Amino acid sequence: MKFPSTRRSAVISGGGLTALLASAAVAVATGSFTTAPDRSAELAAQIDSSKPRNVILLIGDGTDESIITAARNYEKGADGAFALDKLPFVGDMTTHGLKVGPGPDYPIAYVSDSAPTASAWSTGHKTVDGRVSQGPSVADDVPGEDFRTVLMEWRDKGRRTGNVSTAEITDATPAAAAASINARGCQGPQNMAVCVQARKANGGKGSIAEQLVDNEIDVILGGGLNRYNQATDAGPSVLDYARDAKGYELVSDADSLDDVQSVARRPVLGLFAPGNMTPRYAPLIATPPPGAGGPAARCTPADRGTQPTLAAMTEKAIDLLENRKGFFLQVESAMVDKQEHAADICGSIGDVSELDDALKVALRFQRYNPDTLIVVTSDHAHSTQIVPNNGAGRQTATLLTADGDPMSVAYSTQAVGSSHTGSTVRVAAVGPQAANVTGLIDQTDLYWTLLGHKPSKLHGHRSGH
Amino acid sequence: MKFPSTRRSAVISGGGLTALLASAAVAVATGSFTTAPDRSAELAAQIDSSKPRNVILLIGDGTDESIITAARNYEKGADGAFALDKLPFVGDMTTHGLKVGPGPDYPIAYVSDSAPTASAWSTGHKTVDGRVSQGPSVADDVPGEDFRTVLMEWRDKGRRTGNVSTAEITDATPAAAAASINARGCQGPQNMAVCVQARKANGGKGSIAEQLVDNEIDVILGGGLNRYNQATDAGPSVLDYARDAKGYELVSDADSLDDVQSVARRPVLGLFAPGNMTPRYAPLIATPPPGAGGPAARCTPADRGTQPTLAAMTEKAIDLLENRKGFFLQVESAMVDKQEHAADICGSIGDVSELDDALKVALRFQRYNPDTLIVVTSDHAHSTQIVPNNGAGRQTATLLTADGDPMSVAYSTQAVGSSHTGSTVRVAAVGPQAANVTGLIDQTDLYWTLLGHKPSKLHGHRSGH
Repeated sequence: MKFPSTRRSAVISGGGLTALLASAAVAVATGSFTTAPDRSAELAAQIDSSKPRNVILLIGDGTDESIITAARNYEKGADGAFALDKLPFVGDMTTHGLKVGPGPDYPIAYVSDSAPTASAWSTGHKTVDGRVSQGPSVADDVPGEDFRTVLMEWRDKGRRTGNVSTAEITDATPAAAAASINARGCQGPQNMAVCVQARKANGGKGSIAEQLVDNEIDVILGGGLNRYNQATDAGPSVLDYARDAKGYELVSDADSLDDVQSVARRPVLGLFAPGNMTPRYAPLIATPPPGAGGPAARCTPADRGTQPTLAAMTEKAIDLLENRKGFFLQVESAMVDKQEHAADICGSIGDVSELDDALKVALRFQRYNPDTLIVVTSDHAHSTQIVPNNGAGRQTATLLTADGDPMSVAYSTQAVGSSHTGSTVRVAAVGPQAANVTGLIDQTDLYWTLLGHKPSKLHGHRSGH
Repeated sequence: MKFPSTRRSAVISGGGLTALLASAAVAVATGSFTTAPDRSAELAAQIDSSKPRNVILLIGDGTDESIITAARNYEKGADGAFALDKLPFVGDMTTHGLKVGPGPDYPIAYVSDSAPTASAWSTGHKTVDGRVSQGPSVADDVPGEDFRTVLMEWRDKGRRTGNVSTAEITDATPAAAAASINARGCQGPQNMAVCVQARKANGGKGSIAEQLVDNEIDVILGGGLNRYNQATDAGPSVLDYARDAKGYELVSDADSLDDVQSVARRPVLGLFAPGNMTPRYAPLIATPPPGAGGPAARCTPADRGTQPTLAAMTEKAIDLLENRKGFFLQVESAMVDKQEHAADICGSIGDVSELDDALKVALRFQRYNPDTLIVVTSDHAHSTQIVPNNGAGRQTATLLTADGDPMSVAYSTQAVGSSHTGSTVRVAAVGPQAANVTGLIDQTDLYWTLLGHKPSKLHGHRSGH
């Protein structure tokens, strides 16, 4: 083969495949031919129909294929791979919700927010925008039926549970894991204007902040201290209530989180920021054309002060939750979505990497605990598009990637900022029953996988042990 | 469960999963709980490491997750499923190419056109925009190294080959299957301005139209008659040359295609339109806001005259190619991409359905020929985004879906019309060695799967038979 020696085109690229061949021989060059091994046996060996003892669900909020590709290009290069790209089982997941219609039916909402989407995998039910693990109703301020969540099902079986997010822990996605309320905005006891019936003073379950601690999650880690500093209807702050009435150990920075030794006697509530936690990278906001044609930029690390990383929170959560009976842990990298709304390419792709680093922690644990199901997915798609380097998007930015080449992205779903979109999102998994994510699934299907299926009969594989 | 009886939220949705359970029991309601069966055994039973006897590759040009979701919502409803959604093995595929850089290296092009992307799976090599199964060079009009294609590898092993597209058959994607040339525009002998060295008069391989027939593909079906009516350097038209020198049987409409009985003695060249073939639906072009907020429309069928559908071409191609030794067939639904460029939502989603109907034909064949690998994927992502119903995209349109609800889409990567984007695309497969598409692969990895891997050793599955 007399192809000119260029850095990328003289050889078969195979970056993706090669990266996947963790346990197989890498592609072997034989004269002018390169051959890639068949991966059938490798995949077959990964199928395990037994019920998982532990489940770790990792969510990238707003983390669709497009932002994952942008982040991969930036952090690893176009032929690189994240840990989340190497999971053996992959599917696409629909994310639509419902909306309150003119008639008695609930029409489909083809683009949904994080409340109904997170509620779908948390409860197995579709609902309307803004609603948290609760069915729809005729108006925002009228409660629907509370749905039980998969986290609470695990808790009720005597397993430990954890809820970790880089957003306020009372934000929609972590809220849906263990709270049911008619409006996602009702995060603290002083935010209950549209959730009057849910107020504790009115006999309700209280705000999201209160419900999370009342539901006795063993490990709660994230942002949202300001919500917990709000006074409850009974007087004391939610923070005081959590410590004094519910027995929570309170931590507020990376060091004090490190010091927590066990949740066997006291659960832990770690709140590391007044609102949302700080993304990995400082913002780089896309600008109107011809900005994207300008000099390609690298992202700069943000000052995260004493906040732990998502990986550190995940590692500590797993350490604390690990026990003979098993656990359920939800981990959200939340700022991908929020920074996409702000047309901030660095903020969003940096927190895809945060998600991936958290996944690596989970995978390390799984190596010694193979009865752990790990699922990585998203709640909904978003606006970021990788576009040609000509600056024609409404708001565009150009980054210098790990390849050393310019990559342009655009945010154009709105005149300024950007919105969710309605595409499916990737769902990838490894571990027992991970095969259930393959193909096309809906978020309500994922609920059953997180709950644990009755094992099917495998021949030559681990089945129902 | 006392949930109000609404058409969608009173039951577990499960549309995606249920649709997938072709061979398993559907979800069973037991009192207040519904349970979904584990699919591990079902997936395990689908793993087959043997080399395929036949390969059918179906391409939706520009058919990424976003347009698939839009088409599914429109045609099947949000909880529906295409045949392509039910394939057991799913992965994501990177589509980046190269570009001619300022230095000796070829930088990464994070957004590519159909020429390098189709060349990647056709040859296992990355190349630059506009280049067809040929390596890059310092300038567009300077040839690079010709790469052999997977279709030609199959042909050289004595297997029959087919190339079907709804575009001009000389367009980039079908061209890359069996032609090597420095510029995708050099489709006919009179289009060779930037391909001077490739002219037959200059000792080259000739235009794409000529190369496709010189490479003795058994079945060539698509548009592009005008290219074949062009005079060759030797005088006669390419059409006459194909018939008289290369023995092709010529057909020009659905009826004459029906009449073709065999390619055992003569290959067949069917050209059903002067240029591209007609999409399933008449155009519905997105308009500037507030168009998307307007009345939701249904698509109207286009008048396709005597043109066969993609499914009809695929069925005939399979009929003609079927033989004991096996075949390789590439089928492209090309107009998804072209109508997306035109911000035509009906044209593009209709031809996702055309792709799916062609897949159904392939699946029917596979039922009786299980040694057939079927792969469905795309060359690159595109611009269509499903957006909220508020008309805020640059160009927006609203359709009334199969659910009876309004779905808005926007095209916003350019001021008018729209561009390719750089996201990964779905790759789904069924049949022998189909497991190789799972995870993250690159288009150059797909080449090796289409060529056929050396089978890996399976326990309890078909292996290397």
